[in-house]
Amino acid sequence: MARPAGVSGADTKQAIRAAAIQRIYRHGYEAMNLRGLAADVGLRVGSLHNYIPQKQEFLANLLDEIMTELLADFETHMAGVSDPQEALRQFVSFHVQWHTARKEEVFIGNMELRSLAPEQYARVAAKRKQYEKHLTAILSKGKKLGVWTIENPGITAKAILALLTGVSNWYRPDGSLSQPRLTKLYQLMVERMLRNP
Amino acid sequence: MARPAGVSGADTKQAIRAAAIQRIYRHGYEAMNLRGLAADVGLRVGSLHNYIPQKQEFLANLLDEIMTELLADFETHMAGVSDPQEALRQFVSFHVQWHTARKEEVFIGNMELRSLAPEQYARVAAKRKQYEKHLTAILSKGKKLGVWTIENPGITAKAILALLTGVSNWYRPDGSLSQPRLTKLYQLMVERMLRNP
Repeated sequence: MARPAGVSGADTKQAIRAAAIQRIYRHGYEAMNLRGLAADVGLRVGSLHNYIPQKQEFLANLLDEIMTELLADFETHMAGVSDPQEALRQFVSFHVQWHTARKEEVFIGNMELRSLAPEQYARVAAKRKQYEKHLTAILSKGKKLGVWTIENPGITAKAILALLTGVSNWYRPDGSLSQPRLTKLYQLMVERMLRNP
Repeated sequence: MARPAGVSGADTKQAIRAAAIQRIYRHGYEAMNLRGLAADVGLRVGSLHNYIPQKQEFLANLLDEIMTELLADFETHMAGVSDPQEALRQFVSFHVQWHTARKEEVFIGNMELRSLAPEQYARVAAKRKQYEKHLTAILSKGKKLGVWTIENPGITAKAILALLTGVSNWYRPDGSLSQPRLTKLYQLMVERMLRNP
């Protein structure tokens, strides 16, 4: 299949990215076949090679981009928020929305870290750590101000992230639970987890 | 490589299971190569075929067995516990211990559900639901007795399961945090999440 007329290189790159996400999500990175991926986007394998010279580097860039986008979206969402209780509510709302809207990327991002070379892993892991540190900082601030009871902000941040990320495994936007109601329930659970008795 | 003398069929089955878990954990089910798996356990591919006539059915049985073992271990652990607050503490302790001790199986169990045929998926999913319902029942009982504030026991159970399962992603038994201390921190967080104000 030839590339449709008028489709730019940037569009093609985007189409390859979307198709690769679906393939990795459904079958795993190691089982991703470049011949099949080329067919998905209507390219010859040789042409796909121009976009993906090296499969593992492609995965590393994909996971890196996902984290870069998450961090950028997060900064936009949190602009101007400084009170820790409000920051926590906003963190929950941001994380739940992002992780339900982009569940394929979330799944890949958590699962295919194993498939990276050590230096690639370190690059992506640093951005994951940076995101986690935003939450740890919110918790530490609230603890310091005495608004919450937290034994260990670092472990509590990991626990909250796991709790929130879990929604991507079961939440269906077309189900009976609306996104605002879902967010509210998770905000309540998280706030209660930290409440000062 | 021939099978070492004195190794029984049951031992071989166990060795195949252990090697398959490592392969699926590291590379994913679809990338699991039966030739490589045979080599891992010192069998010819033809002999491995006696143990694994069909790859997908092997995966389905593996995921089913993991859930069967989890449910059996859980029943043993919870024998005689009826008070919901004690039951919750025991649930947390059981789940954290099991999910740190068997993190490869936990990872596979969550990730490779996608690789099952619909009827295989339904079989495993029913056992996962059964486990979740044990927790929902504990929460509902505590809510009914007025010991906890819980808006939605079903969603709260999902949230607690995700929070607890998260430990399998980061906890290292050889790190500075002991397993009893880890369990205690998670018991505190979960209890606080449900506390009656």
